Amino acid sequence: MAAAMHCGVGSVGAVTGSVITSLASDNATRQLGASSSFAGLRLVGKGIASGSHHHPHLQVPCPQVGMGRRRPRQDGKLANLAVAAASVETLEKKTDAELVELSINTIRFLAIDAVEKANSGHPGLPMGCAPMGHILYDEVMRYNPKNPYWFNRDRFVLSAGHGCMLQYACLHLAGYDSVLMEDLKQFRQWRSRTPGHPENFETPGVEVTTGPLGQGIANAVGLALAETHLAARFNKPDAKIVDHYTYCIVGDGCNMEGISNEAASLAGHWGLGKLIVFYDDNHISIDGNTAIAFTEDVSARFDALGWHTIWVKNGNTDYDAIRAAIEEAKSVTDKPTMIKVTTTIGFGSPNKANSYSVHGAALGSKEVDATRQNLDWPYEPFFVPNEVKSHWSKHIKEGAALESEWEDSLAAYEKKYPTEAAEFKALLSLKLPEGWEKALPSFTPENPADATRNLSQTCLNALARTLPGLIGGSADLASSNMTLLKMFGDFQKKTPAERNLRFGVREHAMGAISNGILLHLSGLIPYCATFFIFTDYLRNAMRLSALSEAGVIYVMTHDSIGLGEDGPTHQPIEHLASFRAMPNMLMLRPADGNETSGAYKVAVLNRKRPSTLALSRQKLPNLPGTSIDSVALGGYIVSDNSTDNKPDVILIGTGSELEIAFKAGDIIRKEGKTARVVSFVCWELFEEQSAEYKESVLPKAVKARVSIEAGTTFGWEKYLGSEGKAIGVDHFGASAPAGILYKEYGLTVDKVVDAAKELLG
Amino acid sequence: MAAAMHCGVGSVGAVTGSVITSLASDNATRQLGASSSFAGLRLVGKGIASGSHHHPHLQVPCPQVGMGRRRPRQDGKLANLAVAAASVETLEKKTDAELVELSINTIRFLAIDAVEKANSGHPGLPMGCAPMGHILYDEVMRYNPKNPYWFNRDRFVLSAGHGCMLQYACLHLAGYDSVLMEDLKQFRQWRSRTPGHPENFETPGVEVTTGPLGQGIANAVGLALAETHLAARFNKPDAKIVDHYTYCIVGDGCNMEGISNEAASLAGHWGLGKLIVFYDDNHISIDGNTAIAFTEDVSARFDALGWHTIWVKNGNTDYDAIRAAIEEAKSVTDKPTMIKVTTTIGFGSPNKANSYSVHGAALGSKEVDATRQNLDWPYEPFFVPNEVKSHWSKHIKEGAALESEWEDSLAAYEKKYPTEAAEFKALLSLKLPEGWEKALPSFTPENPADATRNLSQTCLNALARTLPGLIGGSADLASSNMTLLKMFGDFQKKTPAERNLRFGVREHAMGAISNGILLHLSGLIPYCATFFIFTDYLRNAMRLSALSEAGVIYVMTHDSIGLGEDGPTHQPIEHLASFRAMPNMLMLRPADGNETSGAYKVAVLNRKRPSTLALSRQKLPNLPGTSIDSVALGGYIVSDNSTDNKPDVILIGTGSELEIAFKAGDIIRKEGKTARVVSFVCWELFEEQSAEYKESVLPKAVKARVSIEAGTTFGWEKYLGSEGKAIGVDHFGASAPAGILYKEYGLTVDKVVDAAKELLG
Repeated sequence: MAAAMHCGVGSVGAVTGSVITSLASDNATRQLGASSSFAGLRLVGKGIASGSHHHPHLQVPCPQVGMGRRRPRQDGKLANLAVAAASVETLEKKTDAELVELSINTIRFLAIDAVEKANSGHPGLPMGCAPMGHILYDEVMRYNPKNPYWFNRDRFVLSAGHGCMLQYACLHLAGYDSVLMEDLKQFRQWRSRTPGHPENFETPGVEVTTGPLGQGIANAVGLALAETHLAARFNKPDAKIVDHYTYCIVGDGCNMEGISNEAASLAGHWGLGKLIVFYDDNHISIDGNTAIAFTEDVSARFDALGWHTIWVKNGNTDYDAIRAAIEEAKSVTDKPTMIKVTTTIGFGSPNKANSYSVHGAALGSKEVDATRQNLDWPYEPFFVPNEVKSHWSKHIKEGAALESEWEDSLAAYEKKYPTEAAEFKALLSLKLPEGWEKALPSFTPENPADATRNLSQTCLNALARTLPGLIGGSADLASSNMTLLKMFGDFQKKTPAERNLRFGVREHAMGAISNGILLHLSGLIPYCATFFIFTDYLRNAMRLSALSEAGVIYVMTHDSIGLGEDGPTHQPIEHLASFRAMPNMLMLRPADGNETSGAYKVAVLNRKRPSTLALSRQKLPNLPGTSIDSVALGGYIVSDNSTDNKPDVILIGTGSELEIAFKAGDIIRKEGKTARVVSFVCWELFEEQSAEYKESVLPKAVKARVSIEAGTTFGWEKYLGSEGKAIGVDHFGASAPAGILYKEYGLTVDKVVDAAKELLG
Repeated sequence: MAAAMHCGVGSVGAVTGSVITSLASDNATRQLGASSSFAGLRLVGKGIASGSHHHPHLQVPCPQVGMGRRRPRQDGKLANLAVAAASVETLEKKTDAELVELSINTIRFLAIDAVEKANSGHPGLPMGCAPMGHILYDEVMRYNPKNPYWFNRDRFVLSAGHGCMLQYACLHLAGYDSVLMEDLKQFRQWRSRTPGHPENFETPGVEVTTGPLGQGIANAVGLALAETHLAARFNKPDAKIVDHYTYCIVGDGCNMEGISNEAASLAGHWGLGKLIVFYDDNHISIDGNTAIAFTEDVSARFDALGWHTIWVKNGNTDYDAIRAAIEEAKSVTDKPTMIKVTTTIGFGSPNKANSYSVHGAALGSKEVDATRQNLDWPYEPFFVPNEVKSHWSKHIKEGAALESEWEDSLAAYEKKYPTEAAEFKALLSLKLPEGWEKALPSFTPENPADATRNLSQTCLNALARTLPGLIGGSADLASSNMTLLKMFGDFQKKTPAERNLRFGVREHAMGAISNGILLHLSGLIPYCATFFIFTDYLRNAMRLSALSEAGVIYVMTHDSIGLGEDGPTHQPIEHLASFRAMPNMLMLRPADGNETSGAYKVAVLNRKRPSTLALSRQKLPNLPGTSIDSVALGGYIVSDNSTDNKPDVILIGTGSELEIAFKAGDIIRKEGKTARVVSFVCWELFEEQSAEYKESVLPKAVKARVSIEAGTTFGWEKYLGSEGKAIGVDHFGASAPAGILYKEYGLTVDKVVDAAKELLG
């Protein structure tokens, strides 16, 4: 259709006619307003009257057209393409506008062809968003394809991750080594670097992992926050060493998800002026036209959230409008910008464009052929025209120059501001400062009992002094989660150098923003907090931390029925088990001061694995036998009176219940038995220990084992064996003082002793 | 402060002075606009000049005041209240306005006193929202306190559930037997009917369970949807047998949560005109002033979502403005209404009002005393003035009359429309139609292989013909989840009698709306659907189904790596385990046609337990040995060649992997061993069987056990024992065709056979 646009002739024009009609009629029903472009199409050249032009300089001169003529072309042209009628001549030397058109169609067809070859994937978005992709990657964004991790690059997030072929095509054209032609041909195949949704851990150049809708825009808020924060901390009036934009494309689906509203509300509140979000307004989702479920005024909502909004009425072909919108967005520095770009999903497909059928399935060979004709694309699959290749090749040189320029600025900065430069470079090294862990407090049984949420605050505040990257906060529970860094103020619009984040009651966005902060890969170590029960609200973000190797620290307090009166809506039961079941997530439940320090040691060291710390509301004594370093073992012996690794009974506890196991051990010993008490602070870490170590803690021969934990017993059989006894809570809790709940539910020393005795016969 | 308002005298006026100042200054910074009431306070009576009045008829006549005088009063007055200065005389006969004031303060002090006694809870909201509570429960809402389940009652949802003492106080005054004075005194105590957050299963009169923020407003959308739907199905021009409003109070926290935006977007789209939501705009959340994290224009956002919005600028004392807003809301019948009511959290507390300190903790005796003085409340704790008691007692009579009137209408309706009445009454009976389960299809191995998501659609469509209450849909994946009821159209603004719900990409709201539909308790059986992975997005709503005894049916397709190319962001791994760990949730994973029918049989029968059906994207054969009824056993023998309940090996599979276990069994048998294949379709149901039955399926003596399931092995030790072998996927998946993933990850017949042989030695 792009060809038809500037060279609409013969049957090509006829083929596109229906699409024009359909767009026009659609336009009418959606009341797109007084756009000067007819139906979003610009018709230029002979044979079809030119439309009126909002941006007249965008008119594309029409190359000479030979109706019905074809002649052999350079390598790559399809020899036997079933062209029903006319094709269009390509001039040896393209004008800039033709080149843009060619580049955009290259993106479209790389997507079409890859999806077709995989017979799986989502061609609709790349076809509709190819103009945005081209403009961003070829004209606007600053990056270095040969160093995808260059710090000062612009960040791009495809929140509508199913359209990943858009990004892969752009990365390929831009010269990223991670997406070679062979990778495009392996789209969605085993071990390819081009998986079905963008995955940062598979494909350098992809910043974050998206697909679950709405995550990406929240990640983008995190990336923009990181830039804003670091710029405020390190930039000087004469040296902007932190200076990049964050771009994001969201779809209708992202905008329906609650997480995106949460994230957008925060971005508006924080005034993240360098965040520019494109809303691919194609009014099609999987179930059909968005009219069936999504009739809100999205732009007005973003206005209400404090964003600057722009509407590009014809995102299909009005490239200058897209360019102008980006310029306008950049000129608004105190608000994030949402550019609604009205597009046609599957643009160019004569029979499937503007319908859900083009969203998530291969076009099919017949429709691919029809689209090739329609867009005047007479090439074989996966073909990149030489002009396009040659044009895009500049990015390798330009990217290197950008990075080198920035390195020079940094060197100059270093001379003038050595202290700041040292901190900045230390952050960017992603290395932890030497001896950082010494900041963590250690405890003895003489220290007063305290809630692990309070001990956690002590750790966070100790770490904040030694870890320049530590930044974080709570979802409106700072005073309950105990997460305030006392030496810092709030990160706010006017104080972005500060490190306490105020997420409001927006748990899901909080998790995803934290992922974005971490995956800015600038040494920031985000932590975030809420009640443990509300991990239910941010679970997918936590899973994406685990999947995308983002070592976010989740500070989750009020971790059991021990929170008492707030009742079952607030009392986690199944949550420990549910995270133990999640791959790559470290689920830590420290029992006292030393273990809380140890949990933070583990969490900070694990920069590619998220950690969830389950912390108590209630006070816990500091137990003899716990230690900071033992936490890294996952499970370890806290007390024992056996000598031959054959105790009569093994009592296992975690967190607030370790104390109960500990006391039960003392009682059993007084009755002449040998008892070992084991703290099982992190199952995942225990699993990683050697068989010998595991045997030294849980010898196979000892079948009498009792576990106690204020949560579901689900999963404990693994460590208890068929004969052991799990004490826990396999039902919902209740609203009552914690002490009463513990007693009523049998989480007591007596019950542990009884269970042990029963096992001992 | 209310007293100061109309009788500000002596030191009472002085005490409130600082609050007035603080409110005024706050008012100024928040630019509340040209309210005619100064600082939201109405000052009437001698000693303080009257403010100007927007609603002059609201002026409260000032009773005669005796400065510094006190005299004995009726029972209940505090004998030794430490009144620093003036108190206020109570006239024997109250004016209407005085009575309103007294009633509102009764609500406030019941909340204050209950929180104080529990030394735990949230006094701030009830103190600020008491006027709304009074107006709703005393003046506006139609209900029958002696039958909390009368069908045609107005529904009330306290989405800001922490403020539950507001609702308990109102229920108590209204005469509900569920909240007697002794219950108020047992607030937040073990086994009380007044738990820390509203729980429908503890307290008749409470419609839904709230506390996790944002759930309540989504529940309210579900309640309003149910009313709209049933009204469209059953009402006649001359008979409105379904006709009630749904009221809801949300706080700042609810409005920050993404789920509330999702739900509000749908309510606007659906045009739920009888949904009226009050936004308690008190600009305080736990972390302090909402200015630190919540500066969006909430009303403008709701406007954008298609709501009618109203602002009551002084929700503390301008009762007529609240009344007028409700009238206006009722007059707008094609849109839901959001009434922003600006209030002062902790209204009346001289030192804690308008601060976070009054949000979630007892005031403390000193501040309680100060508040008593400030609001001229010289009574002992938990006192309800006789005038208030006497006034509210009308609701018992009026409520009975309302119900009886409605019963008469229904009888008249029944005469005129016997068919409709029969269906309506059948629904309301909450009984399933006789023989409904016969609609479920059964299968033989000769039936072609099919995906369980397709078989699920067959079941849903079969059930829709026999279950008049079945209603549901998908979060924009109807064509993937296979959830369309083919004989019905879409529930839309103009077609509310239809039964296909289009939730858009709003999983969390979908779950909570489904809870609301079910807890309308009118016989509707909601189902809702998305990809199994996205249970991560609605997990808290699912948990609340389980907690609040709401038998919602969760249709979760694409239940494993078997979905293939979409990759690890879309492939559930830990999800089966995470729901098996959740109390009161039935996690079903059917293996073929019969088991899918069986899963629906279980799901439909369980009206007080939610069911989650994990369904395959890929085709599965119909296996010999499966049956519809066996699903209710949770685990059962599918094939066996042992005769003495002592097979050499037991192979256990679920869902798509049962086929693998089945084939492995055949191979092992061919090699001369006895093998039993067990389908483990629902762990929870198996747990509920007798010890004998369990032994008959999994005899203790047989230690050679192999399980296979395309998900985490977490938890399988329970059924495998220490010696068994679990085959599963304990890491994230990958983007590739499903067949390749199964092979690469070892989910094959060979691996099962190998594992069995290894165990058999």
